[in-house]
Amino acid sequence: MKTVGIIVEYNPLHNGHVYHFQQSKIVSGADAVVAVMSGSFLQRGEPALVSKWARTEMALRMGADVVIELPVAYSTQPAEWFAFGAVSALEAAGVVDSFCFGSESGDIGLLRTAAKRLHSADRHAPDGGEGRFQEALRSHLKNGISYPHAYAAAAAGCLGDPSGLDWLAQPNNTLGLHYLLALERLGGTMTPYTISRQKAGYHQTDITDEQIASATALRKLLADEGRAEALRPFVPDYTWTILKRELEAGRAPVSWDCFYRVLFARLAVTAPAELTGIGEVTEGIEHRIGRAVADVQPDLGDPFGQLMNNLKTKRYTRTKLQRTMTRILLHHRKEELSPELLGQGVPYLRVLGFSAQGQELLKQMRTRSAVPVVTKAAAFRHPFLELDIRSATVHASAFRSPAKAELWRDYYEPPLRLP
Amino acid sequence: MKTVGIIVEYNPLHNGHVYHFQQSKIVSGADAVVAVMSGSFLQRGEPALVSKWARTEMALRMGADVVIELPVAYSTQPAEWFAFGAVSALEAAGVVDSFCFGSESGDIGLLRTAAKRLHSADRHAPDGGEGRFQEALRSHLKNGISYPHAYAAAAAGCLGDPSGLDWLAQPNNTLGLHYLLALERLGGTMTPYTISRQKAGYHQTDITDEQIASATALRKLLADEGRAEALRPFVPDYTWTILKRELEAGRAPVSWDCFYRVLFARLAVTAPAELTGIGEVTEGIEHRIGRAVADVQPDLGDPFGQLMNNLKTKRYTRTKLQRTMTRILLHHRKEELSPELLGQGVPYLRVLGFSAQGQELLKQMRTRSAVPVVTKAAAFRHPFLELDIRSATVHASAFRSPAKAELWRDYYEPPLRLP
Repeated sequence: MKTVGIIVEYNPLHNGHVYHFQQSKIVSGADAVVAVMSGSFLQRGEPALVSKWARTEMALRMGADVVIELPVAYSTQPAEWFAFGAVSALEAAGVVDSFCFGSESGDIGLLRTAAKRLHSADRHAPDGGEGRFQEALRSHLKNGISYPHAYAAAAAGCLGDPSGLDWLAQPNNTLGLHYLLALERLGGTMTPYTISRQKAGYHQTDITDEQIASATALRKLLADEGRAEALRPFVPDYTWTILKRELEAGRAPVSWDCFYRVLFARLAVTAPAELTGIGEVTEGIEHRIGRAVADVQPDLGDPFGQLMNNLKTKRYTRTKLQRTMTRILLHHRKEELSPELLGQGVPYLRVLGFSAQGQELLKQMRTRSAVPVVTKAAAFRHPFLELDIRSATVHASAFRSPAKAELWRDYYEPPLRLP
Repeated sequence: MKTVGIIVEYNPLHNGHVYHFQQSKIVSGADAVVAVMSGSFLQRGEPALVSKWARTEMALRMGADVVIELPVAYSTQPAEWFAFGAVSALEAAGVVDSFCFGSESGDIGLLRTAAKRLHSADRHAPDGGEGRFQEALRSHLKNGISYPHAYAAAAAGCLGDPSGLDWLAQPNNTLGLHYLLALERLGGTMTPYTISRQKAGYHQTDITDEQIASATALRKLLADEGRAEALRPFVPDYTWTILKRELEAGRAPVSWDCFYRVLFARLAVTAPAELTGIGEVTEGIEHRIGRAVADVQPDLGDPFGQLMNNLKTKRYTRTKLQRTMTRILLHHRKEELSPELLGQGVPYLRVLGFSAQGQELLKQMRTRSAVPVVTKAAAFRHPFLELDIRSATVHASAFRSPAKAELWRDYYEPPLRLP
């Protein structure tokens, strides 16, 4: 069985994702698809709109064969660690022949050459030693620009390709580059593919196409309209029926709005010195947080958005700030997520769901995987898995009236099976 | 000006409190009254129904001359530290000639003799050295009974008065005893008075009298009826009009219900080992908390009550457990509230409000007080004051749609002045 891996969030799963899914099978010639999916909190530092279970259901309905949870230790990280965790999961599975990602460029040769050259320029590990690339990165950061911009500039310089800045500035090219860097670093054997992203840009919030809109735009549309049906033109039928069910059950939409009071109460009682123990709280941002919180006017609405605006600078992207708040909400301490720990790659493969064909694949994975394959969370212990379960519990605590089995679903429920 | 001190919570202020207030002036022959009042969180480990400002207004309307905030470091403690903090505040003021408390016994001679004998039996300081009393207390605790019961038994034994158990078992007698022990320990010069409590017992939740009901019963009535008018027979007019205003503005009722999600999200992400850094988390209760939380069924209603029931044992009173949750909510670390720090008595007198006569009294206090008199919180720094402000901010975060000035009112508002 030829298998392709994809790296996804499905927040929510829309027509663009279906296109990517289908193209991945076509370009790789694969029969089966393993999806590594972020769980309850995502790379932009946000809670997922609906639970990981509902999103797994969408993925299986689309045709994914095995859905693996990307541990929250990686899923809420900057692009480098996110990519490293996801690629390490696909590689560890031992059954994935290739992986395929969307990019603006669509040119795997360009991206792969860049990755190989950057890798050899010693910028091969997120925790790598000091070198030419790191020096350049640091010097760009000193100018007070954001990390993604500094990264693109340093990479372009390192590649001896000033025009490189243009393609590097596009978010899915950067992410793709990080997938390929992770592959180099891991000495991985999977064949990488990329396909051109269709229509909607990653950050796009307006809907300009009749069938494909970005997940960001769809979340905004759902928030504005409050009805799953509003998404109907842009998503497969199963997405909006699952969303509808989740909305009606009071399990969606989950957003930062749901957690503002929790976050506020935490920040109000935590001294800056204590905040520095939390991941991504660096460079004195702990002092700025206190002032930014004190300036929020909850009675004027969107307090979390106000907090982000109060904190935002040229240096800190909103995504970086949201991730910092996610770390605080989930109480991710720096020592729990050290580069040494993350650098080992995912320590287990948590199965969220599988198809009939996926069941066969799982059997192979159980013999070939480099790390334990976990189908019963209660029967396996690892500090990262504990973080995953905690994050799901915090996520579910935002439901309207959560049942005990919903709050601790990881302990109660086996993986989803479709059909 | 002859001045009497009283120690209050006014949650809310009712006819029984008015009686106590009037009797305190009569028995002490005082012209003026200084009230030491708990702020945002109270001795039973609960948030106050309405803000400290609304309760200060009630106290001033009744006729109190100066309202001092009992720091949260003391206000949410077991009876011994609560009493010590409050009596130390009255003593430190330098202008209070006497203090008067309600008790079931009403016999100051009995209580004072007991206090003197217990004090000399070396049970004179909450952090006192080991001695006859401590030994007895520990041996009673080993039998697994609650602290208040063990305390009463040890005290009765120490007093050589087996019948003492009866009067010691009554909560206001015990509290009164602690006031008098604090007075002994401080070598205080104030004359103590006690008056018999009228009608409603402290813990009573039913209303059996036409005009006097316990604050507990009144909070229950308010929760059941949802209208301030329901309290009208049992409270002065200003209490229910102030309550009505606070309810309409979405600033009341504040209760543990408002904080359950915040508490849950905190407990879900905090490891037991980390909980032990928090005050009152002792004797392995950190492990029981995790299990108790996991058994709560929020969809069945009253999740905080369920959590308390899940945690309750013969050993731990609900009050003790609520205080533990208050410490967790407010993130009071053990080292911030060490016996050494608490044993120094209140380090400042924070003025919440005053009358015209109170203004004169404040002038005297400024020259005679043993500790700084604080009228502008923003202009004074002390770790305990920071805890007070934080606790007020957390309390206000439960309001329906808090304004910035409500969340951080301590920084913005001067003391209340009446008339």
